[in-house]
Amino acid sequence: MKAEIIAVGSELLMGDVINSNAAWISKQLASLGVDVHYHVAVGDNPGRIQSIISQAIERSELLIFTGGLGPTDDDLTIATLADYFKTPLEADPESVETIQNYFIARGMPMSNTNLKQAKKPQGALTITNPVGTAPGIAWDVSEQGTNRRCLILAFPGVPKELYAMWSQGADFIRAQQQKDHEIPQILLSHHLNFFGIGESKLGEILSDLMRNANPTVAPYVGRAEVRLRIAAKAASEAEAEKLLAPVKTEILNRLGQYYYGDDDTTLEACISQKLTHSGFGLTVAESCTGGLISSRLTDIPGSSAYTFINLITYGNVEKTKYLGVKPETLTQYGAVSPQVAAEMAEGAQRNTGQDWALSITGIAGPDGGSEEKPVGLAYIGITGPNMAHAQAGHTIVKKVLVNPRYNRADIKYWFSQYALSFLLQALNGTLKTDLNELMAQPGRA
Amino acid sequence: MKAEIIAVGSELLMGDVINSNAAWISKQLASLGVDVHYHVAVGDNPGRIQSIISQAIERSELLIFTGGLGPTDDDLTIATLADYFKTPLEADPESVETIQNYFIARGMPMSNTNLKQAKKPQGALTITNPVGTAPGIAWDVSEQGTNRRCLILAFPGVPKELYAMWSQGADFIRAQQQKDHEIPQILLSHHLNFFGIGESKLGEILSDLMRNANPTVAPYVGRAEVRLRIAAKAASEAEAEKLLAPVKTEILNRLGQYYYGDDDTTLEACISQKLTHSGFGLTVAESCTGGLISSRLTDIPGSSAYTFINLITYGNVEKTKYLGVKPETLTQYGAVSPQVAAEMAEGAQRNTGQDWALSITGIAGPDGGSEEKPVGLAYIGITGPNMAHAQAGHTIVKKVLVNPRYNRADIKYWFSQYALSFLLQALNGTLKTDLNELMAQPGRA
Repeated sequence: MKAEIIAVGSELLMGDVINSNAAWISKQLASLGVDVHYHVAVGDNPGRIQSIISQAIERSELLIFTGGLGPTDDDLTIATLADYFKTPLEADPESVETIQNYFIARGMPMSNTNLKQAKKPQGALTITNPVGTAPGIAWDVSEQGTNRRCLILAFPGVPKELYAMWSQGADFIRAQQQKDHEIPQILLSHHLNFFGIGESKLGEILSDLMRNANPTVAPYVGRAEVRLRIAAKAASEAEAEKLLAPVKTEILNRLGQYYYGDDDTTLEACISQKLTHSGFGLTVAESCTGGLISSRLTDIPGSSAYTFINLITYGNVEKTKYLGVKPETLTQYGAVSPQVAAEMAEGAQRNTGQDWALSITGIAGPDGGSEEKPVGLAYIGITGPNMAHAQAGHTIVKKVLVNPRYNRADIKYWFSQYALSFLLQALNGTLKTDLNELMAQPGRA
Repeated sequence: MKAEIIAVGSELLMGDVINSNAAWISKQLASLGVDVHYHVAVGDNPGRIQSIISQAIERSELLIFTGGLGPTDDDLTIATLADYFKTPLEADPESVETIQNYFIARGMPMSNTNLKQAKKPQGALTITNPVGTAPGIAWDVSEQGTNRRCLILAFPGVPKELYAMWSQGADFIRAQQQKDHEIPQILLSHHLNFFGIGESKLGEILSDLMRNANPTVAPYVGRAEVRLRIAAKAASEAEAEKLLAPVKTEILNRLGQYYYGDDDTTLEACISQKLTHSGFGLTVAESCTGGLISSRLTDIPGSSAYTFINLITYGNVEKTKYLGVKPETLTQYGAVSPQVAAEMAEGAQRNTGQDWALSITGIAGPDGGSEEKPVGLAYIGITGPNMAHAQAGHTIVKKVLVNPRYNRADIKYWFSQYALSFLLQALNGTLKTDLNELMAQPGRA
C-alpha cells in the first residue's frame, strides 16, 4: 500500500508551525508495512485542497490528512473532502455528545463553533478524540464509484490529539490489509546513534554497506549528533531482525567508539540506566549551560533515584560559596578554565555528598568571547568513584570547542551533548584522560 | 511570484527527520513578498524526484529544494535536476578549493566523496556554504528553452547551512523581481502570543475580526500557548503596518490579560527585559522541572546580569539544606504542597541574597501521583520586592494542573510556562494573589 500524508493549514505555509506530524505518521506507517512516497502541505484554500486530492488519488492508495478539523471558520478539511467526493455532511450524534461532555467535565463554556466539529461525510467512520474536541474520520471512498482504491484518514493537526487517536486509524489500515489478503512486506528500521564523528566520515567508513539494497544503511544528521538508519524488508518482524543483526554487528565493529545507543535512546537515558543500576548519586554544577544538562537528565522518568541537588552557579561569588572554588583560582585562571572546571566538580562532589559530579564552565555567547577564550569554548570536569585511572585528584577535565557561529541555545545544546557523552564514557570506564582532545564536529562536514 | 518548497530525502518519509526547513524558508519568502502554495517532501528516488519537478513547474514559478546535496551516494538532487533539464554537470573550481580549504582549516582528512559536492549544472550559479562543504545552486531555467518562468534554488538539508546560505538565495529572488519590474505585494505578519486561554475561546472572542480579508486574523496552537497571526498585504511595509495597527489594538482591548508579547518574543525574553531594566537579581529553586526553568531563562543573551545561582533541589534533604525548608513542613504537608513552595521561594531568596525568587514543586510523572496529588499538579511560589500586595509573608503561591496524559517532558514544559507566566505578572505587579485559581488549558479545546 502506498501512502501520502497531506497537511492542511496556512500556518504551515506561512512558516508559523513546523509539520512534525508527517514524520510521526511516517514512522507509524512503516511499522504497518505501508510505504510513504510523499508529504504535502497545502493552505486553507478549498480549490488548492481539491487539486491536491485529485493528484494524490492518482498516485497513492491511502491519503492521510492532518489539520483543518478545528472549530474555526478556516478549518476546511472535512467539508472539502465531502465536496470533492460529492457526499453530504451529517452530524454524528455520538460526537455531539462527546464534545458536550468534554466541556461539562472541564466546567468550561462550550463555543457553538465546537459543534461544527461533529459533522462528517455520510459513510465515513468517526475516529474519536479522547484528548480534544475534534473527531477524525476513516473513510473508504474506493467503494463509492471510483475504480481505484482510495482510503482516507483525517486527524486534527494538534500532535497530542493525533497521537491519542492514531490506534483507531491503524486498526482501519490493518482491517483493509486483511480484506485484501495482503501480506505486507514489513519494513523494520533501527537507528544507531553516534556522537563525535561527522556524517561524511561515517559515510566513507560504511560506503560498502550503504550500497546494499536490503538491508539499507543510510546516515543522516540528528540534533548535534549523527544517526544511522538500518532498514530491512521481510515478511515478518523476526525475519527482518535476522537480516539486520549481522549488519549492525559489522557497523559496531567499525564505529563502536562513537556509538551510544539505538533508536530513541538518548545520552541521558543511557546515563540514567547506568546510575540506577549502580546505585550511585550524581550532582551537576553548571555554569554556561544554565540548567540544560540538569533538565535533560531529569527528563528521564525515575531520575529522582540518583538526582538530589544540582547547582547552577552562574556567578563567580556563587562558584565559591556553593562549590568551594578558590577565589585565587578564579582570579589567576578566569572562570572559564580547566582549573575552575576541576574545582567545580570536586567541590560539588564534596559539598553535596554525591558519588559522581559533572561540571561545566564555558562561553555560550554571543558576547563574552576573546581571541584566547572564544565563544564556543567550554571545560567539562568529571569526578567519581570509577576515576582511579584519572590524573591528579581523580578528576578529568575535557576541553571542547563548538562552532561559534551557532546561536546561544544551540551552543548550550552542543555543550550538553559533550558533557553527557563524556559522563557516559566515565560511567563506562572508557573516558580518556587527555585534557586537550578536541573532538571533530559531528554533523555534515 | 508563486513558490513551492521541495524537500528531498528518504529520512523525511521514514519519519527520522522533521522538515523544519520548509517552515523557515516560508517565513523568509513571506518577507520577500513571495507566496508559498505548497510544501512537498519526496524520497531519494530519481524517478519520483523528476515527477515532482514536472508537477511543480506547472504550478509554481520558484522551486526551492532542500536536501540531497550531501557527500553520500544517496544525495541526488543536483544530478536529477541536471538530468531533468538535460544540462551537463561541471565541477566548479571555486567550490573545489573551498571544500579543500574547509578540511585543511580543521585539520581533518577530506573524503573523496566530498568533491562530488562541487559539481553543478552548466549555467547554474553557485551558492557558497560558509558553514559546511555542500554548496547550493541558483539556476534560472526559464531562459533555457521552456516558455514558462522557472527559477530553482537548491540548499543543503542541514538547517544551519541553509540559514547561513539563505541571503544569497534572497538576492537571487530580489534581482529577478527587479528584472520583472515586479512591485511585490508585501505580506507582513505579526504574531501575538497568549498564555492562559484556549484556541476556540480566543477564536470565538475574535470571530468578527477573523472574517476580514485584509488584514487576516488567524489563531493557531503554539507549544503550550496560543498564537494569533495578523497579516496584511500592501505595497510597502509601512502601509502594511498601518493596516495592522488598529487590528492589534482591538485584539488587545479584548484579550490583553492573556497577551505577553509579539512575534519571537518568549516569556523568558520578557522576564529578561524586566529584570535587566530593574537591576534586580533572580534565583530559581526548582524541583519537578529539574532545571528547565533555569535553562530557559539562561537561553537569553545577557542573562548573567541577573542570574547568579539557581538551585535544583530534587531531594527533600536538599530542600532543607539548600533552601531552609523545615523538615516538619515536609512531613506535615508533603514536598508537593503550597507550604513547601512558599518556604522554597523564601529560603532561596534569603539564602542567595537575590531580590526575586521563583520556586516550583510538583509531580511530572509518569509515576508518583495519587488521587489527592495527581501527576500534573504543581505549586509555584514567588516572592520579591514588589510583593507588598501579597498575602502573609510577601509570597504568592499558585496551584496549577496540567493534563496528566501528557508525557513527562511536556508536563515539565507546561509547568515552566505557568511559572514564567506568573513570574512575568509578578514583575509587572499584576499577579493575582488567590492560591487556587486553576487556569483553563490553552490548546485546542
